Amino acid sequence: MRAEIIAIGSELLTPYRLDTNSLFLTKRLNSIGIEVCRKEVVGDDRRSLDVAVGDAFRDGPGELLILMGGLGPTEDDRTRDAVSQALGRRQYLDDAHAERMRERFRARNMPMPEINLRQAMILEGAEILENTKGTAPGQWIADSGKFVVLLPGPPHELETMFDKEVMPRLEKVAPPHHLITRVLKISGQFESYVDATAAPIYRQYENPETTILAAPGEIQLHLRGTGATEAEARERVNELAEKLKIALSDSVFTENNEMMEEVLARLLLTRGLTLAAAESCTGGLVGERLTRVPGSSKYFLGGVVSYSNQAKMDLLGVPKRVLESEGAVSAETARLMAEGVRRAFHAGIGIAVTGIAGPSNDGTDKPVGLVYAAIADDAGHRVAERKFLGDRERVRVQAAQLALDMVRRRLASLTL
Amino acid sequence: MRAEIIAIGSELLTPYRLDTNSLFLTKRLNSIGIEVCRKEVVGDDRRSLDVAVGDAFRDGPGELLILMGGLGPTEDDRTRDAVSQALGRRQYLDDAHAERMRERFRARNMPMPEINLRQAMILEGAEILENTKGTAPGQWIADSGKFVVLLPGPPHELETMFDKEVMPRLEKVAPPHHLITRVLKISGQFESYVDATAAPIYRQYENPETTILAAPGEIQLHLRGTGATEAEARERVNELAEKLKIALSDSVFTENNEMMEEVLARLLLTRGLTLAAAESCTGGLVGERLTRVPGSSKYFLGGVVSYSNQAKMDLLGVPKRVLESEGAVSAETARLMAEGVRRAFHAGIGIAVTGIAGPSNDGTDKPVGLVYAAIADDAGHRVAERKFLGDRERVRVQAAQLALDMVRRRLASLTL
Repeated sequence: MRAEIIAIGSELLTPYRLDTNSLFLTKRLNSIGIEVCRKEVVGDDRRSLDVAVGDAFRDGPGELLILMGGLGPTEDDRTRDAVSQALGRRQYLDDAHAERMRERFRARNMPMPEINLRQAMILEGAEILENTKGTAPGQWIADSGKFVVLLPGPPHELETMFDKEVMPRLEKVAPPHHLITRVLKISGQFESYVDATAAPIYRQYENPETTILAAPGEIQLHLRGTGATEAEARERVNELAEKLKIALSDSVFTENNEMMEEVLARLLLTRGLTLAAAESCTGGLVGERLTRVPGSSKYFLGGVVSYSNQAKMDLLGVPKRVLESEGAVSAETARLMAEGVRRAFHAGIGIAVTGIAGPSNDGTDKPVGLVYAAIADDAGHRVAERKFLGDRERVRVQAAQLALDMVRRRLASLTL
Repeated sequence: MRAEIIAIGSELLTPYRLDTNSLFLTKRLNSIGIEVCRKEVVGDDRRSLDVAVGDAFRDGPGELLILMGGLGPTEDDRTRDAVSQALGRRQYLDDAHAERMRERFRARNMPMPEINLRQAMILEGAEILENTKGTAPGQWIADSGKFVVLLPGPPHELETMFDKEVMPRLEKVAPPHHLITRVLKISGQFESYVDATAAPIYRQYENPETTILAAPGEIQLHLRGTGATEAEARERVNELAEKLKIALSDSVFTENNEMMEEVLARLLLTRGLTLAAAESCTGGLVGERLTRVPGSSKYFLGGVVSYSNQAKMDLLGVPKRVLESEGAVSAETARLMAEGVRRAFHAGIGIAVTGIAGPSNDGTDKPVGLVYAAIADDAGHRVAERKFLGDRERVRVQAAQLALDMVRRRLASLTL
């Protein structure tokens, strides 16, 4: 079965908003083997809506048509009317639902505005999908071999309704075809290297399908395998994932779509080690990422954002002569920052990043994108030098990822 | 004129990617008065593509149809074929363009794979849009009162081509109808307050249209005014913006869609003041935001991420007895952190954030979401207490915004 998703709302056609509900729906649909073949965003004017719903129902490539938004009580909420017209089905006032709405208002000692009754209008032959988080009910209609689903737009209403009301119905009508996805993430390698290494392996498989995606600081391999049972799909994906993992070796930092900071949390906790970070060009990004993980206070003691040279001297003990001879962006400064922050926080591991994020350089002949990252622990230290491409934000993201990845590689090498 | 945008690419139908090119296009189109009335994402299978292009060309509500992606040299790149079929126009090999492609390869001493010639296939009657950043040319076709534009998918190719080749053509064919947008951002107020204050004013205007949007830590008022000339549109928008600004007073931190950290950069630079930040629950986010601005090293000296109590004592000089009697999350600790970081960095202004980001609290009876932010300067100090709603990420974002906003309000009160 294939699905088409239509998001309804004029605010989604401005430069400021994107439809993100469809990502949630795609994830859920994929999990039971339904692919999304088309997505649309239309405004809430009646003509656009009629054309979109009519086209999708008549010509659309999907057997499942999901509409979201436009189920509210106001004049702007025209989804029901558009579906009514496209399917040639009349609407009626569902007394039971209208009564439940009145009760809600009575419970709060408020009169219900008559306009709210629009939300109790149901298409002939539709099944009502209960909305436990709001007032607008969803609707499920089987028509001409297709299924049309109306969902409310607010994410928490949509997500709850989809899981409780739509998924069980889909599992009944969708053929037994299961889809398993897995995401391997690779750090410290160029996309071209990852592709040259991985392609000869994944090209041997039509199922799973493999997609390679580049994000700042990491390359992702998305594996999507299908099977008649979940176990069969999973086995196919696991077989390929295992081969890719062997080929890409310790560049693979997760096989389960984790973020780098989640991987570090596990490694640090199982080894009982603590961490502190000294940051220059990343300005706090390394600490911000580490502390995204709930419970990170168990292993992350804190850090120093030493944006000025004075702070590098005062708080991290980098000697003035090193800053003068080597410069703030140098291997030596990075090492001394890592050792200094480790000392200042009494941490097991100290890490540091210093670099030139751009857009202009620091007045020396060092290029924009030059970054040094260092790690220091009981056993000594290690410094990495990189020249990253991209704008200020990309350089900073890659620099932070490099520092975190150095911790990962160091911890992975320590036997438990 | 109204536009419809179709993004082509199967990767945009997975749970991991969203089409964001359309935001760029919408911004540009809006700037010359063209509204986007429908957006679509379709995969690169031929059937979905044919249906989408055919429907849009025949029935679509827009007079301008923009297709992006699927112009590459491989079998997966079928946009040209789909448009050829929908418009009933044959394709021919453009010799001049083919020769330019060959030259590029010769310059690199590489033979051109024959498959690349597909990129030189042009629709009969189309104008070629030059691609200065890649090899696939764009195309512009006028047909049956509509305009069809083919653009490459990679953002840097698309953006350059759109600005250089498409905008000048649109300005010729689009009726003189100008649209000006302005974004006011408000901090430290609830959406309900902002709406109650702003709605009685903006409801008096049909033009500009006003939309109120809530983002974590700020409320945005988007004003979109149209006019026969740019000056007329601008005047309408400015008149309303001025009234809103007076009503909302110093809660408005920008009238030009700036980020808070950009506003602070201007305020700090003009006053010649420096800043340092002590962070607990935000873990580095305050520093990371301040250093997003190029040149921030001129006023931001750095900070301490004092995630552990030991760091609050050692690096910021918060006395142990305060941490024991008041707790790490307290007004007194926040004040001492701000004063401590100011001292440690010899900064004009010190700020601090401490709070409970969740998901669980710190073992005391203090609730998740409780945040204290403090500011200290020559004149003394100020502490704010808030109880933020939302998950860990939302609490952190709101906490960072609160601390930055305290700097803004303090600086705005200082006469130059």
